[in-house]
Amino acid sequence: MKNPIIVPELRELILANKNAEIANFCRTGHPAIVAELISALSSKEVWQILKNAERPLRAEIFSHLDVDLQEDLVTTLNREELVHLLADMAPDDRADLFKRMTDEKQEAVLPALAHAEREDIRRLSAYEEGTAGSVMTSDYAMLPAQITAAQAIDRLRREAPNKETIYYAYVVDENRKLIGSVSLKDLILSRPNATIDEIMQKEVLFTRIHDDQEDAVRKIQKYDLIALPVVNEKDSLVGIITYDDAIDVINQENTEDMEKLMAIGGSHEHAVYSKTSSWGHFKNRAGWVVVLAMLGLISGLIVQKFEGLLLQFTILATFMPMLADTGGNTGSQSATLVVRALALKEISNKDVLAVLLKEFKVAILLGLLLGMITFGRVLLTGGEILLPEGCTIAIIGSAIALALSLQVVTATLIGAGLPMVASFLKLDPAVVASPALTTIVDITGLLIYFYTIKLIVGI
Amino acid sequence: MKNPIIVPELRELILANKNAEIANFCRTGHPAIVAELISALSSKEVWQILKNAERPLRAEIFSHLDVDLQEDLVTTLNREELVHLLADMAPDDRADLFKRMTDEKQEAVLPALAHAEREDIRRLSAYEEGTAGSVMTSDYAMLPAQITAAQAIDRLRREAPNKETIYYAYVVDENRKLIGSVSLKDLILSRPNATIDEIMQKEVLFTRIHDDQEDAVRKIQKYDLIALPVVNEKDSLVGIITYDDAIDVINQENTEDMEKLMAIGGSHEHAVYSKTSSWGHFKNRAGWVVVLAMLGLISGLIVQKFEGLLLQFTILATFMPMLADTGGNTGSQSATLVVRALALKEISNKDVLAVLLKEFKVAILLGLLLGMITFGRVLLTGGEILLPEGCTIAIIGSAIALALSLQVVTATLIGAGLPMVASFLKLDPAVVASPALTTIVDITGLLIYFYTIKLIVGI
Repeated sequence: MKNPIIVPELRELILANKNAEIANFCRTGHPAIVAELISALSSKEVWQILKNAERPLRAEIFSHLDVDLQEDLVTTLNREELVHLLADMAPDDRADLFKRMTDEKQEAVLPALAHAEREDIRRLSAYEEGTAGSVMTSDYAMLPAQITAAQAIDRLRREAPNKETIYYAYVVDENRKLIGSVSLKDLILSRPNATIDEIMQKEVLFTRIHDDQEDAVRKIQKYDLIALPVVNEKDSLVGIITYDDAIDVINQENTEDMEKLMAIGGSHEHAVYSKTSSWGHFKNRAGWVVVLAMLGLISGLIVQKFEGLLLQFTILATFMPMLADTGGNTGSQSATLVVRALALKEISNKDVLAVLLKEFKVAILLGLLLGMITFGRVLLTGGEILLPEGCTIAIIGSAIALALSLQVVTATLIGAGLPMVASFLKLDPAVVASPALTTIVDITGLLIYFYTIKLIVGI
Repeated sequence: MKNPIIVPELRELILANKNAEIANFCRTGHPAIVAELISALSSKEVWQILKNAERPLRAEIFSHLDVDLQEDLVTTLNREELVHLLADMAPDDRADLFKRMTDEKQEAVLPALAHAEREDIRRLSAYEEGTAGSVMTSDYAMLPAQITAAQAIDRLRREAPNKETIYYAYVVDENRKLIGSVSLKDLILSRPNATIDEIMQKEVLFTRIHDDQEDAVRKIQKYDLIALPVVNEKDSLVGIITYDDAIDVINQENTEDMEKLMAIGGSHEHAVYSKTSSWGHFKNRAGWVVVLAMLGLISGLIVQKFEGLLLQFTILATFMPMLADTGGNTGSQSATLVVRALALKEISNKDVLAVLLKEFKVAILLGLLLGMITFGRVLLTGGEILLPEGCTIAIIGSAIALALSLQVVTATLIGAGLPMVASFLKLDPAVVASPALTTIVDITGLLIYFYTIKLIVGI
């Protein structure tokens, strides 16, 4: 969101070189608000503002700018400005920015960096997107077990300005192995000369670098953590995931699930509606739409095959789109509920029978209700319809109603079953996209429809 | 999720009255894990375990139990047990529990409560669901501006065990008006004799009790807050919303949006898939399914009206389901993207023209692609089809392709436009459910199809 309101005032300050006033402006609000306000300026002007902000604040405001603008700025700065900026940034934000740069930009930036930052970026950006390692930060507070609470507070006080959170500190042994955690609250509450070993929590919740980011985040959520430590293969502490990054992951995963449910492709990482070009949107959506259109032709061929039946019973054409729609709707509903319950870890693979049983019961109720309504509807319009000899309106009505009920039950079970199957195969349940499901139950629905009618009417 | 693994061991401990061992078991893991482990027991057995846990821990484990089990337990406790338990619970969890009880249960519990808790419950449960007031807690740390940092730390140390978070304290004047905030980190870093007035942040982000909980939560997310203060009409501090409750709200709102997109009704508050009965699921889903089935009959009537055309050009029946499906898919995709972007506040009402323009461009690209593929497909199967005199396979092919392109453009614009209209009317954009949209573009699609064919073929 850009905010053009104070652009003229900011431009005036830049032109008049009122550096003290600019520095003051940067201090007045939350860095995220300042970033929003200056985003309406050109990238050159943005730097005129930022370079007047004090150093740690400058990097904080910078981190809240849009990614494109960050990339633009980074490549135009001189070596010294760049080194300062990147040194002040939070390690995870810095690694994210770096990962999103083109190869040339990365090569232009790397030599300007200090050795420590270069190593840190290399390490953090090595983890695959979607893993716990890719969202962790290396900025955590670490304590040995032997010191006292008073010494620990003193140490945190000295380190505080550079750490993302000092509200939790992690206790490690000489090999950096995670052996406990202690909150600042515990430190403040305990006797000053108690040792960390005495007051630390020894059962620490943690995640491994290659674990799914979603599992890590669910732990933060379930256990109300401010941060979750991340360990490597040797159980050594390598980073933490903070609650604010967890919230970003939750939103990203939710967007991803929703888009997959609607058969929208693309990476879903850092995807922002208004930032994605029309061409990008087209590419994300075209694949599935084309595949499903081709699948839709199968429905067409089924309709064509039963043209003779449709000609004999013109009433069948009237109820055909409704049958297809209803199958898609009931199937999508149950797929959505199951996908969501799986995502929130409310149900798991072993619940497959319980879920199918519940969906079966719901489907029977829905099928009965819709069947009765449809039977009534056929009888109501019945008078005007021509039927072949030997077939009454009641017979054709019950045939249509039965077909609809069967379609509802089938579609609901397919809708609930496919995400469970996907989860069982360790695939993402949301890939069983609602549009794909709609197309599949269209096909099963038409087959059910025509064969039920044939069977009951006896042709 | 229930975990039956250690049920036999727990039962043995209860039968043998090994109270010390039970107390020890309660201490061993995170309260959420203990709650999960004991949930497989009967409610009577759960209390046999809980009553042996130390008091504050007992309430913590209790808060992590499922709501139904909590309600069961509360009504079976004696007066003293109940008073202790409710006094130890976090105010927001306590108010939530109370709100979900039946009137009789509420009346049974109220007299047993201490005055302070009774008043607190009354106040917290007075706010409407969905407002900031309904998710806040009254357990925050408050400081006057005149004391020193050292005095403040001392005060927080004394209050700590009873506060949800002491990492942020809120500074109020004599009328409880919110005038600043100070983090524990700031307090530790500053000179011990600096006054709060000197070190506090004077620009405090806050929300009002009647504001939408979603707006409050977006602030916590955007500004990476641990807690957001809530003020009443007189700007007096009345509570805080903590980051962990914000995460719960985010998940709840996301589930709600997804379910609405799939036309699933119900309150969406505290709804859990496996906790909802089949009958409950049926009631939530049946309404829309029936309405949409009735709307689907309109499509059927259109098909019936153009039966003559379908008989002349049998190829039209083959492509008809594909046209309907494709309209539904492209419309749902654009609706999902717009609903999500609105929910994340990425776009707002004033962006309506920009959004429609972008969707129009995407739709033109999708329409062209699908049109070309369809034209090729018609030509390929063309040889076997009987056509009336004067009409070539190229003419009917271009007519079908053009109709499909028009359908894609119309469906995409309707899909993007309806959520924007809903948002403009201050309705929830997600009410423009995907199934409803699918049914609408089915109808528009069939009309476009038949009229385009008639126009081009010239009948």
